[in-house]
Amino acid sequence: MTCSDHQAPDSNGSTPNHVRTNGIAPHHHHPQPIVSLDHGDPTMYEAYWKKAGQRCSVTMSGFQSLSYFGDGKTLCWFMEKKLEDEIRKLHKVTGNAVVDGKHIVVGTGSSQLILAALYALAYTLDISNPVDVVSAAPYYSSYPEMIEFLRTGLFKWSGDARCFDKDVPYIEFVTSPNNPDGSTREAAVMNRGQLGMLVHDLAYYWPQYTAITSAADHDLMLFTASKCTGHAGSRIGWAVVREENVARKMVKFIEMNTIGVSKEAQLRSASVMELISLSCQKRKPCDVESFFDYSQCTLADRWKRLRDVVTKNQLFSLPKFPSHYCNFRREVVQTYPAFAWMKCKEGIDGERLLREHKIGTRSGRRFGWEAEYVRISMLSRDDDFDLFLHRLSTIQPTANGNQN
Amino acid sequence: MTCSDHQAPDSNGSTPNHVRTNGIAPHHHHPQPIVSLDHGDPTMYEAYWKKAGQRCSVTMSGFQSLSYFGDGKTLCWFMEKKLEDEIRKLHKVTGNAVVDGKHIVVGTGSSQLILAALYALAYTLDISNPVDVVSAAPYYSSYPEMIEFLRTGLFKWSGDARCFDKDVPYIEFVTSPNNPDGSTREAAVMNRGQLGMLVHDLAYYWPQYTAITSAADHDLMLFTASKCTGHAGSRIGWAVVREENVARKMVKFIEMNTIGVSKEAQLRSASVMELISLSCQKRKPCDVESFFDYSQCTLADRWKRLRDVVTKNQLFSLPKFPSHYCNFRREVVQTYPAFAWMKCKEGIDGERLLREHKIGTRSGRRFGWEAEYVRISMLSRDDDFDLFLHRLSTIQPTANGNQN
Repeated sequence: MTCSDHQAPDSNGSTPNHVRTNGIAPHHHHPQPIVSLDHGDPTMYEAYWKKAGQRCSVTMSGFQSLSYFGDGKTLCWFMEKKLEDEIRKLHKVTGNAVVDGKHIVVGTGSSQLILAALYALAYTLDISNPVDVVSAAPYYSSYPEMIEFLRTGLFKWSGDARCFDKDVPYIEFVTSPNNPDGSTREAAVMNRGQLGMLVHDLAYYWPQYTAITSAADHDLMLFTASKCTGHAGSRIGWAVVREENVARKMVKFIEMNTIGVSKEAQLRSASVMELISLSCQKRKPCDVESFFDYSQCTLADRWKRLRDVVTKNQLFSLPKFPSHYCNFRREVVQTYPAFAWMKCKEGIDGERLLREHKIGTRSGRRFGWEAEYVRISMLSRDDDFDLFLHRLSTIQPTANGNQN
Repeated sequence: MTCSDHQAPDSNGSTPNHVRTNGIAPHHHHPQPIVSLDHGDPTMYEAYWKKAGQRCSVTMSGFQSLSYFGDGKTLCWFMEKKLEDEIRKLHKVTGNAVVDGKHIVVGTGSSQLILAALYALAYTLDISNPVDVVSAAPYYSSYPEMIEFLRTGLFKWSGDARCFDKDVPYIEFVTSPNNPDGSTREAAVMNRGQLGMLVHDLAYYWPQYTAITSAADHDLMLFTASKCTGHAGSRIGWAVVREENVARKMVKFIEMNTIGVSKEAQLRSASVMELISLSCQKRKPCDVESFFDYSQCTLADRWKRLRDVVTKNQLFSLPKFPSHYCNFRREVVQTYPAFAWMKCKEGIDGERLLREHKIGTRSGRRFGWEAEYVRISMLSRDDDFDLFLHRLSTIQPTANGNQN
């Protein structure tokens, strides 16, 4: 099949009735609502799951899963065994991470696991000052926001990892592929010996976004269903953890925070992952298209169309990515990040310009970067994406370098 | 029907294979595992929900609820409309709380809402010192544990509300009926004028546990599905909040903590609550027994049997509760708390004694109280409860006041 087959049947470029503003109820009555590409809301995947139909439906009866406890037997006492099994299987099918001999900890989205990792690592240190937490700019905007909101004495946000030069223990988030810019990353703080503790946030290290060049084998790796399967509404994330001591402390955090993770969400996530693994292996009774083929093809089409608009327009530019051999696909593949990290011409505030044209994005400033940059979600529904491209194509540069 | 009809079919007093130790995988191979009544794991309700069968089953397809956003239009942007509707309906059916004109905020269990309330209230104060958080002893053991774990500079645990006499802003948890002792409570800190902010934790203010004497109408009230419907595994709690400003800050906390609450869990909880409301109203097509009749009857039976054992044995004592007119039942009803707050004879460490007899309980010390006291869950499955009573009945006092 060709990529054009992936257009959702309701894609017509008209104003969608589900566009949202940031955290606020939708403006249903506004004549021209903003198309919100600020969040990475992964509704792009809805079309695939509609085609999959009832193949991964889950029915929960009233008497199921009343207990706080899961039915697994690991240190993560609130985890469902089926979810752990499907997580391990999906990592083996895609080859993106080494899971054998490691602990799986389920969380309420990877947000909760980011905090669980920080608390667990800070508690292992037993020092009196807050631990410095860093990540190379541009960094995921939620890291500083989540950390500063808590006002804990255990850790503190210390900004760009490339500027960090203190001889004290620290925690570095290594986000690869990176949110917001899609680049492949390694640890940025250099020559700190035993002082650094790394958290690898691998939310986007899946075959639809990038080449799987090796099975990641780090001490503490975070993943999330939101970006892998598209089920952000489930709030399911997981950590793959080498040290039992760290895994236990993360479980303790989740116990202190929410006493575990919804069983309904765990069971549906497991069912969704099971279908994805089957779809990759082309095994009976799975007659659906490979999830990662579909997703990559849809993203490739969107990226091509976005690059076409940007090329015609002299105001914007997009990063370029190298191609790599993907062990999962057994071929050289291109990179199609979940976000476009778009730069406007010098001196233009990107977020403000796009907002004037009814396109909601997230400013580069939120990521510790320049205001010329914006992060744009590539994972919206088709009609929102079409509307975005249409509006973007109408923005004209003016003679003095500003826009109309 | 009589209460004896409520015995689950698998109740036989034999050693159950699902007994658990505290947060650790079950000891399947231990010849005499501990019967764990430490947590308030509400598996008692399983028998009711088995009888209800498929009446409140929920089927989720793969394409549903992918978005971070709920389909409601309130300030709680991640809430499902159906859940809010059923929460409001259930409060009206039971008459336990005033919800009209108030905001509903859904959380990942009431644990998350306890923290959300603390952050929201502390942020409204804008003071430089941590706000004191108090509750009258014996208080819910999780309050100090959750607060101290976070090590935030915004609030700190300051113990027994009855000992609090500082002239500074403070937050008081008013837990009514109280966990652990089942008593009805009002604010304990007196004469502090405008300085106090109250959080009413009403997890147990439902008709199976106590008389509904009036519709609670406080500024910030917390409820949880775990103790109302028995679905602890769903991790669904909700707050009823008078001030929009406070509700918005609670929503912000949940956004910073877990970016919302599982949609699957919200939808199943809504379906479960819908059935409960129908069962109370005896409306067609609901042909099931009233949920609160069933639950109260089961608890009444358990309390009677526990009191019989305790009366025969000279080592223990239990609190007595006054009867009150219940507006929901339109009759005078007795109180059947979800926990037994049991006192041992002077000088005996209750938790240790019971653990020696393979009964897992939570020591009074965890609740800011004396070691003679233990908290025992009354909400276990029938076979665990039977095993508990059997073991309790075999404990003999010795001549010198200690036990065998």
